[in-house]
Amino acid sequence: MRGRSQIVTLLTDFGAKDAYVGAMKGAILEICPEAIIIDISHEVARHNVLEGAFILSQASPYFPEGSVHLAVVDPGVGTERRRIIVKGSRSLYVGPDNGVLSLAAEKEGVVKVFEIKNEKFMLPHPSRTFEGRDIFAPTAAYLARGVDIEEFGPEIKGFTGFSIPKPEKWSKKLRGEIIHTDNFGNITTNIPEDMFGEFAEGKSIKVSIGKISKNCPLCRAYGEVSAGSPLIIPGSSGFIEVAVNQGSAEKLFKARVGGRIVFSHTRQVGP
Amino acid sequence: MRGRSQIVTLLTDFGAKDAYVGAMKGAILEICPEAIIIDISHEVARHNVLEGAFILSQASPYFPEGSVHLAVVDPGVGTERRRIIVKGSRSLYVGPDNGVLSLAAEKEGVVKVFEIKNEKFMLPHPSRTFEGRDIFAPTAAYLARGVDIEEFGPEIKGFTGFSIPKPEKWSKKLRGEIIHTDNFGNITTNIPEDMFGEFAEGKSIKVSIGKISKNCPLCRAYGEVSAGSPLIIPGSSGFIEVAVNQGSAEKLFKARVGGRIVFSHTRQVGP
Amino acid sequence: MRGRSQIVTLLTDFGAKDAYVGAMKGAILEICPEAIIIDISHEVARHNVLEGAFILSQASPYFPEGSVHLAVVDPGVGTERRRIIVKGSRSLYVGPDNGVLSLAAEKEGVVKVFEIKNEKFMLPHPSRTFEGRDIFAPTAAYLARGVDIEEFGPEIKGFTGFSIPKPEKWSKKLRGEIIHTDNFGNITTNIPEDMFGEFAEGKSIKVSIGKISKNCPLCRAYGEVSAGSPLIIPGSSGFIEVAVNQGSAEKLFKARVGGRIVFSHTRQVGP
Repeated sequence: MRGRSQIVTLLTDFGAKDAYVGAMKGAILEICPEAIIIDISHEVARHNVLEGAFILSQASPYFPEGSVHLAVVDPGVGTERRRIIVKGSRSLYVGPDNGVLSLAAEKEGVVKVFEIKNEKFMLPHPSRTFEGRDIFAPTAAYLARGVDIEEFGPEIKGFTGFSIPKPEKWSKKLRGEIIHTDNFGNITTNIPEDMFGEFAEGKSIKVSIGKISKNCPLCRAYGEVSAGSPLIIPGSSGFIEVAVNQGSAEKLFKARVGGRIVFSHTRQVGP
Repeated sequence: MRGRSQIVTLLTDFGAKDAYVGAMKGAILEICPEAIIIDISHEVARHNVLEGAFILSQASPYFPEGSVHLAVVDPGVGTERRRIIVKGSRSLYVGPDNGVLSLAAEKEGVVKVFEIKNEKFMLPHPSRTFEGRDIFAPTAAYLARGVDIEEFGPEIKGFTGFSIPKPEKWSKKLRGEIIHTDNFGNITTNIPEDMFGEFAEGKSIKVSIGKISKNCPLCRAYGEVSAGSPLIIPGSSGFIEVAVNQGSAEKLFKARVGGRIVFSHTRQVGP
Repeated sequence: MRGRSQIVTLLTDFGAKDAYVGAMKGAILEICPEAIIIDISHEVARHNVLEGAFILSQASPYFPEGSVHLAVVDPGVGTERRRIIVKGSRSLYVGPDNGVLSLAAEKEGVVKVFEIKNEKFMLPHPSRTFEGRDIFAPTAAYLARGVDIEEFGPEIKGFTGFSIPKPEKWSKKLRGEIIHTDNFGNITTNIPEDMFGEFAEGKSIKVSIGKISKNCPLCRAYGEVSAGSPLIIPGSSGFIEVAVNQGSAEKLFKARVGGRIVFSHTRQVGP
């Protein structure tokens, strides 16, 4: 399972200002000095487990096989939720059992799940408000160092997951959900690119979010429409996105994560 | 003193946007290509030396022995304040002599202090507005490379420190100071966990900041109260914190760093 | 050309929250596990190519010879603009041909420019909305791994650049442009330090931006004036800056990037 690298990635909602991320990195390097620590994000919205899960699932597939991905978005820190290691087909995932690991692990395929129980691999007297530093970071570091996953605790069946809702499709209408908005104001939906392709083929499409509707062309690059104009585009995540060239679709449509998005045929085009 | 690693950590108030942090990292790698550079924070409030000192002191204890910690929060850059290296019992600290290194260095124990004077270990013609790049980063890099601390300049007696005020205790009241508020709106006080334990044992406690008072249970995990409720909790820093489960105590109490916080007994509980 | 290190620096306008930067780092490490990845900035203002170019040019000179600098500020992603590698006299630059590489590359001297065409060095089926991950990051990684620059595509003549406007000088007046404002509110102009030195020698100087004018001393350190007072200072970039000691010149002068700044003699001083 472990490959050529000791990569440990970090994803948290801790923000960039405080000492928390630094303390976790120190704890990792103390145990595994060869670790290559890579930040995925520390700007996940506070306590937003689903957002953390989504971001992790967009980044982890690009890391080398054998990487250890540590994710701490953990509103239940110190309570009785489990702490887990998920062995995926390519990677290892460490974090609380609240769903934050689920989208990434399920994407590559879950092989086994273990509960973190063995105090030998925790800092002494772990804080109940900062298990990231005292339990999860040491776990990731020992995994990176090559400790066998079975030593951390018992194998368990299943873990907490999210079900991203499936889009609904009628003859002239496709209804999905907004699952992410990014730094550019691009809106990511839950509609896979190929499903949308069938629906949209040869049609003109109107996008509606709440009370705002706009006709939007299906493009392959933002620059195919003029600056400030909206468009539909297959995103780099494999899902359909709505964007504004050099502007913000999030603002134009007053979109928020979790909200509905409807695509409808406006008229037939072509022969 | 130097251990297995060439870790150099960075803490500044430079922010994430400008080229300043990148230029410092380049200067370090030019001198010490083996350096493992780890960011602690670049989001210290501008010119807030005490905040930088506090954050550094919360992270540096978790790094391996022999790490070099570089901290540049330096409103006096280019003036006649000294530039120093502090040799602690575990780590080396590099920065301006304005207190930013003091809390972390005193926590582990100060062994010796040296003034940085030797121009051989600075970039040529150092800028007087960016000593982080031209003096401090090279110093840290040469230390990481193994240059003896005595080569940088003369040993000096003492350095600039902060005295974090001591809490005051009466029979039914404990008065402390707010020394930090974090990304989650948690309020860190200057009251050590054990001092608070004695004061609070078997009592119900009211927390007062300014004109706002709330009864708060003493908990071990945020999730012991319902979402939105305030609580008192021993923080991961070893000090007592006031928090709101999945909310912000900073907002609820309109707290600001440097302000007073009062804990009082409300009534006897138990047999 | 390649030196002792496999440093790959990153500069983007992607922000710290999303998975984009993490995915790029994963893609780099998958191809070149020995890469030392260093962030310069991910907080370039969205689509602001000139700002990205300026920040890169302030950081890259401090990195070791042979470093690979990857810059993706790319409003035209997916359109027909070229993707290029610039071989400078010290470093390699990878990014879109929209000017983002130009200031840094021209500063050290451009040796050759190549267009990125060879699909062998891209991820399969590259996304047209995220070439940073699928084309530019792999290019940088293969360069860091030692692949010869000529293998990526044909040599081309020239690339897109910016001309930073030249300041204009009269007997008692010097007019320049604001090219950057930093995290501290310092205003960087396009006026080189030595040009300003001649103009200002023995004179008192008034700084005017828009309708706001202030007499400002020429200093060598911020602390030479009292807190809150404005000053003129040779910046660490080699250009003249206007600053406020422990305050923000950007706010005091209501300055914005691209605006004019005028320095004028107020009276003769000295014998």
